[in-house]
Amino acid sequence: MSTLYKVDTLSLGDELLLGIRANAHLVYLGRELAQFGLPLRRALVLRDAPEEIRDGFLSCWKDADILITTGGLGPTDDDLTRETIAACLGRKLVHDMPSEVALRERFERFNRKPTANNLKQCYLIEGAEAIPNRFGTAPGQWLRDGQKVLIMLPGPVNELQPMWRDQVLPRLKIEGLAEEIPAYLQLRTHGIGESQLETNLKPIIDRYPGRLSVAYCAHMGAVDVRLSAYGHSLSWQELETIGSEMKAVLAEDFVDYGDRELPEIILNLLRANDRTLAVAESCTGGLLSSAFTDIPGASKVFMGGLVCYTNEIKEQVLDVPDCMIQQHGAVSGECAVAMAIGLAEKFGADYALSISGFAGPGGGTEANPVGTVHIGLSSPFGVWSHKIASPGNRLQVKERAVNGALDFLRRKLRKYEEKKEFVECLTLD
Amino acid sequence: MSTLYKVDTLSLGDELLLGIRANAHLVYLGRELAQFGLPLRRALVLRDAPEEIRDGFLSCWKDADILITTGGLGPTDDDLTRETIAACLGRKLVHDMPSEVALRERFERFNRKPTANNLKQCYLIEGAEAIPNRFGTAPGQWLRDGQKVLIMLPGPVNELQPMWRDQVLPRLKIEGLAEEIPAYLQLRTHGIGESQLETNLKPIIDRYPGRLSVAYCAHMGAVDVRLSAYGHSLSWQELETIGSEMKAVLAEDFVDYGDRELPEIILNLLRANDRTLAVAESCTGGLLSSAFTDIPGASKVFMGGLVCYTNEIKEQVLDVPDCMIQQHGAVSGECAVAMAIGLAEKFGADYALSISGFAGPGGGTEANPVGTVHIGLSSPFGVWSHKIASPGNRLQVKERAVNGALDFLRRKLRKYEEKKEFVECLTLD
Repeated sequence: MSTLYKVDTLSLGDELLLGIRANAHLVYLGRELAQFGLPLRRALVLRDAPEEIRDGFLSCWKDADILITTGGLGPTDDDLTRETIAACLGRKLVHDMPSEVALRERFERFNRKPTANNLKQCYLIEGAEAIPNRFGTAPGQWLRDGQKVLIMLPGPVNELQPMWRDQVLPRLKIEGLAEEIPAYLQLRTHGIGESQLETNLKPIIDRYPGRLSVAYCAHMGAVDVRLSAYGHSLSWQELETIGSEMKAVLAEDFVDYGDRELPEIILNLLRANDRTLAVAESCTGGLLSSAFTDIPGASKVFMGGLVCYTNEIKEQVLDVPDCMIQQHGAVSGECAVAMAIGLAEKFGADYALSISGFAGPGGGTEANPVGTVHIGLSSPFGVWSHKIASPGNRLQVKERAVNGALDFLRRKLRKYEEKKEFVECLTLD
Repeated sequence: MSTLYKVDTLSLGDELLLGIRANAHLVYLGRELAQFGLPLRRALVLRDAPEEIRDGFLSCWKDADILITTGGLGPTDDDLTRETIAACLGRKLVHDMPSEVALRERFERFNRKPTANNLKQCYLIEGAEAIPNRFGTAPGQWLRDGQKVLIMLPGPVNELQPMWRDQVLPRLKIEGLAEEIPAYLQLRTHGIGESQLETNLKPIIDRYPGRLSVAYCAHMGAVDVRLSAYGHSLSWQELETIGSEMKAVLAEDFVDYGDRELPEIILNLLRANDRTLAVAESCTGGLLSSAFTDIPGASKVFMGGLVCYTNEIKEQVLDVPDCMIQQHGAVSGECAVAMAIGLAEKFGADYALSISGFAGPGGGTEANPVGTVHIGLSSPFGVWSHKIASPGNRLQVKERAVNGALDFLRRKLRKYEEKKEFVECLTLD
């Protein structure tokens, strides 16, 4: 990991500390910064209270090179970031006429009038430049202070992200602060535990003592392995060579280089083979379908899905025989397969993936307790079912079941479709 | 907000700073702590690097009363929290035999053998007590140091949450650190902007200068208003009175007290009126269905959903006439209504909610650009369509469309079903 510049973020907002809202900016900015050679050093989340903003700001500002604040630039009385940071820096707030013109234009477009509290958004810290906000009322601010840069961004995601992408990142590159070199090489695995993974990779890792840094990150069935060099002791090419050795050792537990998610990998494989996909879900209740439809261009491959929360819908729409549900239960490998076959026919899909299970907290039987999930798959190459047991609460069972189904489909696709030529989905990028 | 105890969290993990994983613990712990009278003061996210852990730990420990760490207790070489914090406190790590016994038992249950790196998880900071981990290998730690308490929790969500709920929170209550008094009264609104909201509520707010603290939090169509008292200048009962005055002013923009989400509120309303619900989606691709099925007990009301990503599925499963799609387009109020009517009949549901739109980045027409979403609703009281325009990227359009559809259904349910007696969904709890 590069340590050229120390980059910190300060996220303001009581709602982030009271569990009301997740700090989405950390994920977004963290990835963006890492990708351009500016891995985050630390991230603070602070209350909208002047003394907290002051303490947090000063603790980062004393040795950070780049400090990015998010939120607290709004029009209401609890938005105090601007005022407090100006005071810390011993600078005044000065009125910015272009910001006021932009704000008034924006309100006119929506046939509204700015209130007095909106107008306080037109003040900048002395010496700062406004970063125009195309999607909201609060401009961002860019302040160069000696060797340091302070970047203040608005809280709403749909304002912050375009401002970052179109204005802040390009400027960081122009000023020579951001680069385009990857900071680490990541291998994503699925279906293997963290300890076992480390044990399997140890012989390779041990060949590079003091040079190769390896970090693991487990999340819902996947474990990511991140390879980087201590100092500059390994070139990017050497890291790639180590990565491909590891890929060979990991065999089909290896999913991809990078951080592509299973739905995207699967849709790419299907598209490259001119295949279509449909899904039928009970306990995951639409989450599997939603995971595929998060991917731009999904409609080229993904035909649709059915959420069958009652047996009647399984019978009526998917032609699952009532007698089969009576005999084996709705949560069974037999039922999952019948759902997949019925779906493939009904929707005319090449691949039909089904999930049936108990997400809890209610339901479940002795043979199939809460967390039991059966996956069914109908494909041009055969029909399979697969059982998994997911510990955890309702949302965890949903997420694990979806990941289990995705990985099951991925393995079958790799096995049966790889004989054809297809777009290389595993390129490093 | 209570300021009796200063509570901070330290979350460890490079993956949290590199944008690979969201810090789910902050949302969970933030809510839990606030609920029990221990609102978080600040939250730090740090790299798995000894110097960062040391700096971050010391900056909080110098004046925090309760410090909670998450993550970094795993078996691999980048899990350094234990060692680094022990060094900061000038304490040794000591072996804990009960933890080793539990770890060996756990591995035996899964027919695996602990590796050497697993066994380092059986070491505690001198003076700390182990907090047994029922769902993983790393025990938590509880260390009382003078008036301060250090609580170290494992990183995986399914290990941390039960440990918190079953062991840490009860102990905080027993030791008189956590309470059960609510820290603030929250009103959730939908369909009104933050500035307009503040303007509407100003006459009420202005009656309590220096006593009533009001904070706003906007998220995807909803704005939460949080009322609390400066010091103890307003009793809980007075806050409730102010809240009900605000509720009256807000009229149907008022959604609920507290942080209940729209799907839960809707399912409660439906259940109280013995109504069933089904959904049909195109651009939201299962997200609407998944939102309902996140709620325990949804199956009592929610029958299922259809994700129709092709026109053929709309025609075949929902009997939407091809000529109507040709005439008005799949993204139209007419088509949304036809989807809802077809779905109500096919699934035998009382309420059928449909969404059709362009999520982007591709698609869209001049009349209906990307972000245009039509909502359809079939109910025992009539059939409606409603058009919304969602700015933002694909995922934002999906989320806003779902929230728009949910709020549309909520308003209709309140209007047409409120005449019946039903379980009070708006109680404070």
